[in-house]
Amino acid sequence: MAFKTLDELRSACTDLPAGSDSAAEAVAQRQDTLTKPQGSLGRLETIAAWLARWQGRDMPKLDKVNIIVFAGNHGVTAQGVSAFPSEVTVQMVANFAHGGAAINQLARAAGAELDVIALDLDRPTADFTQEAAMDEADFLAAVSTGYDAVKPGTDLIGFGEMGIGNTTPAAAIAAALFGGSGRDWAGRGTGVDDAGLSRKAAAIDAGLQRHAEKLSDPLAIAASLGGRELAAILGAVLAARKHGIPVLLDGFVCTAAAAPLARLYRGGLDHTLAAHVSAEAGHRRLLDELSLAPLLDLGMRLGEGSGACLAINIVRSALECHSRMASFAEAGVSDK
Amino acid sequence: MAFKTLDELRSACTDLPAGSDSAAEAVAQRQDTLTKPQGSLGRLETIAAWLARWQGRDMPKLDKVNIIVFAGNHGVTAQGVSAFPSEVTVQMVANFAHGGAAINQLARAAGAELDVIALDLDRPTADFTQEAAMDEADFLAAVSTGYDAVKPGTDLIGFGEMGIGNTTPAAAIAAALFGGSGRDWAGRGTGVDDAGLSRKAAAIDAGLQRHAEKLSDPLAIAASLGGRELAAILGAVLAARKHGIPVLLDGFVCTAAAAPLARLYRGGLDHTLAAHVSAEAGHRRLLDELSLAPLLDLGMRLGEGSGACLAINIVRSALECHSRMASFAEAGVSDK
Repeated sequence: MAFKTLDELRSACTDLPAGSDSAAEAVAQRQDTLTKPQGSLGRLETIAAWLARWQGRDMPKLDKVNIIVFAGNHGVTAQGVSAFPSEVTVQMVANFAHGGAAINQLARAAGAELDVIALDLDRPTADFTQEAAMDEADFLAAVSTGYDAVKPGTDLIGFGEMGIGNTTPAAAIAAALFGGSGRDWAGRGTGVDDAGLSRKAAAIDAGLQRHAEKLSDPLAIAASLGGRELAAILGAVLAARKHGIPVLLDGFVCTAAAAPLARLYRGGLDHTLAAHVSAEAGHRRLLDELSLAPLLDLGMRLGEGSGACLAINIVRSALECHSRMASFAEAGVSDK
Repeated sequence: MAFKTLDELRSACTDLPAGSDSAAEAVAQRQDTLTKPQGSLGRLETIAAWLARWQGRDMPKLDKVNIIVFAGNHGVTAQGVSAFPSEVTVQMVANFAHGGAAINQLARAAGAELDVIALDLDRPTADFTQEAAMDEADFLAAVSTGYDAVKPGTDLIGFGEMGIGNTTPAAAIAAALFGGSGRDWAGRGTGVDDAGLSRKAAAIDAGLQRHAEKLSDPLAIAASLGGRELAAILGAVLAARKHGIPVLLDGFVCTAAAAPLARLYRGGLDHTLAAHVSAEAGHRRLLDELSLAPLLDLGMRLGEGSGACLAINIVRSALECHSRMASFAEAGVSDK
């Protein structure tokens, strides 16, 4: 799917499948027959119903689980917003390829196939304090790459990212969508000091001012203030909805990348769960704005899809209980 | 290990291995060389150090992971404190044996061997509103059963329980150890209504009053107000400490069962992690009293070791990252 115009993309974002009420209801009914007090598995029960709703299956499955990590580089690093140099992005993509990064270990532990897609790392986006991060063609190309990276027939998908400097565009998108200043949304990312944090907040404020006339349009926000890997995540989350694939969002950057979908269409992120709340300053507020309740809160702030991988194991456990527990009748257990 | 007197047990509870500072330090040092910003894996990093400390190994392992579920019956059910009849305990033990319960699915999903140990189900403890739940011999026998259930050489162990009525003794133990009334600690367990909740609070208050003169002794609390499966968990958590096995505590009942160890010896639960905070009313408060920070908060309230199993996957992921990630030097990634 190559999106050729912003309007074509906008149409795709506002014409979304609703999910299967009947499949979700079938799960809820079965849950109440299983050998446990009703509701006692808490979110494991609602996760099973969520899987069913978005897979459109009365009995969900998790045979094909995929993690896709998108990588990009950012012109805004010229503003001194990151603790690491930009060359680390391509070095970490090599580390992913050799199996040495956290995401390699976590994807394996979650039984997930890992794909890594690098987007023009030798061609960073423009510095958004000076001009739009991406022009329309660049933005649509990145969104289309993300869209096409999603394989129909996948049962559950998680998204992650790698991109030195990318908590700055993430914070800028969050501020543009939900209000507030750079100071409200900037965090320490990979570990900037106080001076770096101030530069980051200032860069965000400069970006908000520079692009002020475009900020009523969520897609213009994503193009002007975002980055290629964020645009790819937006496209991929959209593709998952079209293909009936439930999504696990990862941390602050991933959530900010997907957030325009919720602004373009009410319920546009209903097929997603927040895998975790990260330690990055703005993430909890962003999840609150999106009414997403994170599954995990482990003080992580790595990105890469690391939180999404941990959540896959919870989703797997939820489905194991749902699909394989005995009913009160089958087990001869007295109901109350 | 058959404990013959309370004093012998008390001595065992106050002569505990301290864990290996050097192993924990080796983990922390290695963590800071791995290809991620320092500290960015959050609790996954501290979990790896915790494993090392209590296994006494610079490089921890998780080859043998065990879940033990202890089951018991409770005379206090005569006070109308549970939504389910007592025969459900033995029925659920049969369900465990046939693989139909939640814990069967969750243990398999966590790669854990599941053991179920039923303690005299046809001989409920006495109703603690009338007399001590267990006399000294009964209590020591249950503690010893738990102690002996722990297999040396296990790398990580989680404990769970099944026992209709057992959130009442758990709440009574918590109140006796940490203050407060039945109303402060009673929750809905498997789902009692308001009248049942009032009966439960009243039963706890009656027990606290009946045994008031013994409540300065944590072991006397466990014997007078507890239950056999709770006593077994106490013995098993103690055995794990002696054998160098890190422990995952499960929900409210499991945590209350282990709590006397923290009262007998400062740091007596340092080799444990709280797998989750359950939806049972008193659990969060109890964890706060014990300074235990739960790994998960998923609204579960099933017991059985269900939360412990979910946490095993997190611990496995922590160790996979720690043991298999590349260092900055190995991967040729620029450090900041």
